[in-house]
Amino acid sequence: MKPFLNEHFLLETETAQQLYHEFARDLPIIDYHCHLPPDQIAGDLRFSNLTKIWLDGDHYKWRAMRTLGIDEKYITGNAGDYEKFEQWAACVPYTMRNPLYHWTHLELKRYFGIDELLSAGTAKDIFERASASLQSPEYSVRSLLRKMNVEIVCTTDDPSDDLPYHDQIAGDQFEIPVLPAFRPDKCLFIDKGHHFIAYIEKLGAAAGVSIKNLTDLFDALKKRMDYFGSKGCKLSDHGLEYIHATPFTHEEADNILQKGLNGDTPDEKEIDLYKSAVLHFLGTQYHQRGWTQQFHLGALRNTNVRMEKKLGPDTGFDSIGDWSQASALARFLNKLDETDQLTKTILYNLNPNDNAILATMIGNFNDGSTRGKIQFGSGWWYLDQKLGMEDQMNTLSNMGLLSCFVGMLTDSRSFLSFPRHEYFRRILCNLFGKDIEQGELPPDIEWIGKIIGDICYHNAKEYFQFGK
Amino acid sequence: MKPFLNEHFLLETETAQQLYHEFARDLPIIDYHCHLPPDQIAGDLRFSNLTKIWLDGDHYKWRAMRTLGIDEKYITGNAGDYEKFEQWAACVPYTMRNPLYHWTHLELKRYFGIDELLSAGTAKDIFERASASLQSPEYSVRSLLRKMNVEIVCTTDDPSDDLPYHDQIAGDQFEIPVLPAFRPDKCLFIDKGHHFIAYIEKLGAAAGVSIKNLTDLFDALKKRMDYFGSKGCKLSDHGLEYIHATPFTHEEADNILQKGLNGDTPDEKEIDLYKSAVLHFLGTQYHQRGWTQQFHLGALRNTNVRMEKKLGPDTGFDSIGDWSQASALARFLNKLDETDQLTKTILYNLNPNDNAILATMIGNFNDGSTRGKIQFGSGWWYLDQKLGMEDQMNTLSNMGLLSCFVGMLTDSRSFLSFPRHEYFRRILCNLFGKDIEQGELPPDIEWIGKIIGDICYHNAKEYFQFGK
Amino acid sequence: MKPFLNEHFLLETETAQQLYHEFARDLPIIDYHCHLPPDQIAGDLRFSNLTKIWLDGDHYKWRAMRTLGIDEKYITGNAGDYEKFEQWAACVPYTMRNPLYHWTHLELKRYFGIDELLSAGTAKDIFERASASLQSPEYSVRSLLRKMNVEIVCTTDDPSDDLPYHDQIAGDQFEIPVLPAFRPDKCLFIDKGHHFIAYIEKLGAAAGVSIKNLTDLFDALKKRMDYFGSKGCKLSDHGLEYIHATPFTHEEADNILQKGLNGDTPDEKEIDLYKSAVLHFLGTQYHQRGWTQQFHLGALRNTNVRMEKKLGPDTGFDSIGDWSQASALARFLNKLDETDQLTKTILYNLNPNDNAILATMIGNFNDGSTRGKIQFGSGWWYLDQKLGMEDQMNTLSNMGLLSCFVGMLTDSRSFLSFPRHEYFRRILCNLFGKDIEQGELPPDIEWIGKIIGDICYHNAKEYFQFGK
Repeated sequence: MKPFLNEHFLLETETAQQLYHEFARDLPIIDYHCHLPPDQIAGDLRFSNLTKIWLDGDHYKWRAMRTLGIDEKYITGNAGDYEKFEQWAACVPYTMRNPLYHWTHLELKRYFGIDELLSAGTAKDIFERASASLQSPEYSVRSLLRKMNVEIVCTTDDPSDDLPYHDQIAGDQFEIPVLPAFRPDKCLFIDKGHHFIAYIEKLGAAAGVSIKNLTDLFDALKKRMDYFGSKGCKLSDHGLEYIHATPFTHEEADNILQKGLNGDTPDEKEIDLYKSAVLHFLGTQYHQRGWTQQFHLGALRNTNVRMEKKLGPDTGFDSIGDWSQASALARFLNKLDETDQLTKTILYNLNPNDNAILATMIGNFNDGSTRGKIQFGSGWWYLDQKLGMEDQMNTLSNMGLLSCFVGMLTDSRSFLSFPRHEYFRRILCNLFGKDIEQGELPPDIEWIGKIIGDICYHNAKEYFQFGK
Repeated sequence: MKPFLNEHFLLETETAQQLYHEFARDLPIIDYHCHLPPDQIAGDLRFSNLTKIWLDGDHYKWRAMRTLGIDEKYITGNAGDYEKFEQWAACVPYTMRNPLYHWTHLELKRYFGIDELLSAGTAKDIFERASASLQSPEYSVRSLLRKMNVEIVCTTDDPSDDLPYHDQIAGDQFEIPVLPAFRPDKCLFIDKGHHFIAYIEKLGAAAGVSIKNLTDLFDALKKRMDYFGSKGCKLSDHGLEYIHATPFTHEEADNILQKGLNGDTPDEKEIDLYKSAVLHFLGTQYHQRGWTQQFHLGALRNTNVRMEKKLGPDTGFDSIGDWSQASALARFLNKLDETDQLTKTILYNLNPNDNAILATMIGNFNDGSTRGKIQFGSGWWYLDQKLGMEDQMNTLSNMGLLSCFVGMLTDSRSFLSFPRHEYFRRILCNLFGKDIEQGELPPDIEWIGKIIGDICYHNAKEYFQFGK
Repeated sequence: MKPFLNEHFLLETETAQQLYHEFARDLPIIDYHCHLPPDQIAGDLRFSNLTKIWLDGDHYKWRAMRTLGIDEKYITGNAGDYEKFEQWAACVPYTMRNPLYHWTHLELKRYFGIDELLSAGTAKDIFERASASLQSPEYSVRSLLRKMNVEIVCTTDDPSDDLPYHDQIAGDQFEIPVLPAFRPDKCLFIDKGHHFIAYIEKLGAAAGVSIKNLTDLFDALKKRMDYFGSKGCKLSDHGLEYIHATPFTHEEADNILQKGLNGDTPDEKEIDLYKSAVLHFLGTQYHQRGWTQQFHLGALRNTNVRMEKKLGPDTGFDSIGDWSQASALARFLNKLDETDQLTKTILYNLNPNDNAILATMIGNFNDGSTRGKIQFGSGWWYLDQKLGMEDQMNTLSNMGLLSCFVGMLTDSRSFLSFPRHEYFRRILCNLFGKDIEQGELPPDIEWIGKIIGDICYHNAKEYFQFGK
């Protein structure tokens, strides 16, 4: 019996162990997509205790606690930090087989050197030890990034954001570049009434443009892209149920926008047309700037209205949707491709049923111009776990080329989430290791080690062209 | 090479074997959802031979026989019981890799102590031995339930049913409670013309209500729920292609019902609205009574009109549908949740593509009020097999909490189907055993044994609150 | 560590090895569905070098090369044959974990006796050795078919084709029957404007019928079916996004056809109705002739308009679609079944999500009349790889009967693709071998060997009734 979470964790064969320890383990991390708060990096924040850095804002843990019947008081409520931690600790042994169980113990081990298993019985000791560590400068958020061998971080930012913290970080000569990424979701939400109008006003203010029509909006977005670009931005990101690719004219989309700005509610078809126009425009702009566009498709958000009213969005009430994705996605990519305006693109799916669709879609638009130009992104959110990652990589292997994959990102709000890269790398090495041991791949360890290094680090470095 | 179907069947590691034999094997069975005929339990029926108890009504076996080119005469036709058995026996060796092959031999072994493999060559001997056993009082249906360590049985009953057999069973002081479950599918079938009208009349008669409109219908349903409740009912069940959750007013739904009762055929949209209204109403009533509501989603039924005319429904001509499920399901659950009227709920899918959708949907409405309040149900029908169960449990593990799962039910029409619980338990223990041996879980056998015991028995006992 | 691609390739257990080498390896190949060019067989072509026989026309390889950033010049462009080969050779080590990697080395080994791994370093030597072999009569296309133990080949042919090469092959007394299969896709493409009109004219000319209306079209199709039948045709094939099964009258469909023939564009609903009518008619005709109908469902074709304009269709720009399949398919099969006009049918899916749908759909129409009458076809295109085949066979096993499966076909344009049958057989034997070793099947090697032999060869022979 193999010990739990030892050095060969997830590495079932000797070959997998060799691949991981020789070719993957020590590579730096390019975290090209995350939700880390730039202000905390700017301030080089130290968290006052383990609850603050680990439980606050972690809707994965919150969902588990709610499922186990824990009162909201101990989750997002007004209980004390240790009370909350104690409740979480008691939940942990019930999370076995969920990635939370692995993440929890990997994070305690890698950041705090704590090998004990977390439970009601060990809660107090672990809370105290970890919280004590957090007082030291070695546990400031910048130190945590260094500790994890992070080479670059891309945050996720609204176009209206002036990015003062990115400036501050850059001004500080912090050796790890923290770059913004452009996430203009809100300019698509034309169905949100006064929220939309207020947002467009805010965007206009940031851009110095009074937005009255579609040309103004596009002008404002271009100005913000220029601004983001000047701060080193190389990626955009979109969170969508599905892509919008309805035929449109500028005039039609313009009319719908003006309707929205006048406080009228467009109908379903109009919303779709408007979104199609804006997404296409943004795609052409990303191409012009050499940015990579990302699409996160398939989340069914804010399903629980009662809890949303209480706690707001992103608090653990989102799940997997089952919209049809393929045809519209093909139309969207094709429309950009036809005029040679399709930029590097990463497609992420939340519904595992879409793995095969994305893994084959990317090949339709890989035209030889850039190695791995269109990418099928790493297992996202609910798919960011062992079986989910294996499925993503096996599907990509069988229907595309795993060797061109730009690999893992954290997609996380937490500075303690970087061991997910280790987790990914172990799973990747395990897949290759098994294939070699079973005679399905030749035992060319050097070559396969090179491919693994590419997927863990070099492909991303080459692909995004940060700082160029 | 491991012998076929020995004591360690499906248990690939020593740890799995230990987990099964120490923590799972001997637990009683809570069969909270099945289709056993209450009249047979009331009469404590003894079947006259193996065909009667094993082949009659078993559409799994019928489909296999038809695929193998067996004439309908030997399936549902007028051939003699032994003739039918002989045909089935000859088919069995061709069912290898289908769950029928495992079930067949597990059932022969556990009920009849027969270790021989069934085939044309052993047909006569096995038929005679098993049929001889069936003559003895130890093989009456009540004895079979005792033999299998069944603690409670929930049947599936129409609201118009007066439940005389449940009364008789209870009056007999049979030590295993046999409780009704409320399955009001027929009151939704407003598109069935005179069948619907006749059904509503029957329901009204049972309730002592003349149903002329929606208020009457609701009144009748409440009366029947009260009646079922007085007999110990704790669950309802619905078989639907997909959930209906269109916005409605009572008045709209009422108009549609009256149209239906007048013999007019409502259109698609009206049908959807009517169903939405009735399902929502029922949901609120279940909540008021503390019942658990079950939804079986995704069956494409009665596809073969020629055979349906010949043999009626549920004779082996249903398959897996591919409707979109997520958005409507979220709306349905949310509407009940918003007014705090969402009761304990179990969602079952027939299409394996919906595993991830249900496994994440349940978390949206687990609000801390009841441990595991919303459940992703065990692999159903075509998914009730080794890979199907593993997928269901792996998805639930990765996207929710396996530890809160209420586990297995037979969903069966046969008194010989209880070894499916054994099958489930072995597969469950095997999953945990492998994780432990591979170092993906700590070797805390006692704790993991406790989780397994919870899933096999204690969670269901706690969840349904039978007799309370 | 097992050597790469040795005699026990893909056979993980001794039992699997025994099953493969004793029961599967030496059986002939019935290639009941492929796209081999009959003119090349008629002319008994010898290819001038390895590029010509291996790279030309192989869009699997082209997609991989484009993903790796290779310029189109070296793919479909005007680079020299060796230049192209060199580029491909350099790509091969990057295709690890894609089926291309296995196919490549299996084909080099089986056809050319080349054991070296293909890469930039070995490109020259391998190109020269294989190209030298290709000069010899042993490498003419007929010799290649003999070498691979092919017993029969079914090509894929348009109804307007006069099949001169099939005649020539038959006239030559070539010992391997090369039969046509009927693929009338183009008569459905009523939305293709003048292309459709031109096609219908061509079809009419071939049939000697002036097609002015639906009756004429049906008449022409019948004449062509008679003609194909006279050449030994036993199968038809359809490539569709999804099946069409809208209720129609002859008159409605006739009006739509006439509209199309007059150069008007029918709308979506009309197109669907027209296709429903033609597909149903064809189904009845196939039944009358005892043919097997095949449906390949779910490809999203020609997604990249820019490349299609440059290179035409079938050049590597198709991917997996996600249309709903179940309900229409059930209606289509039922409509034929109701009048007892449903012929033997094989359903293939491109989207792996449809595995369970097809595996259960077939059981709805297996009525005992013919063993395995309705079939769930082998993993197709993107699913023609190890995991894809395993999924198809596991799904079929669990939801139907694997023992009745007619097994593998190449679906290939290349004479070098026959090792895919070996690949399939190894995977099949591996599945049974594992089950036996784990005690999930009894160790009845003779019986399981028989089932394997049936799936690899005998079932297809019995099913298609070639030459009868």
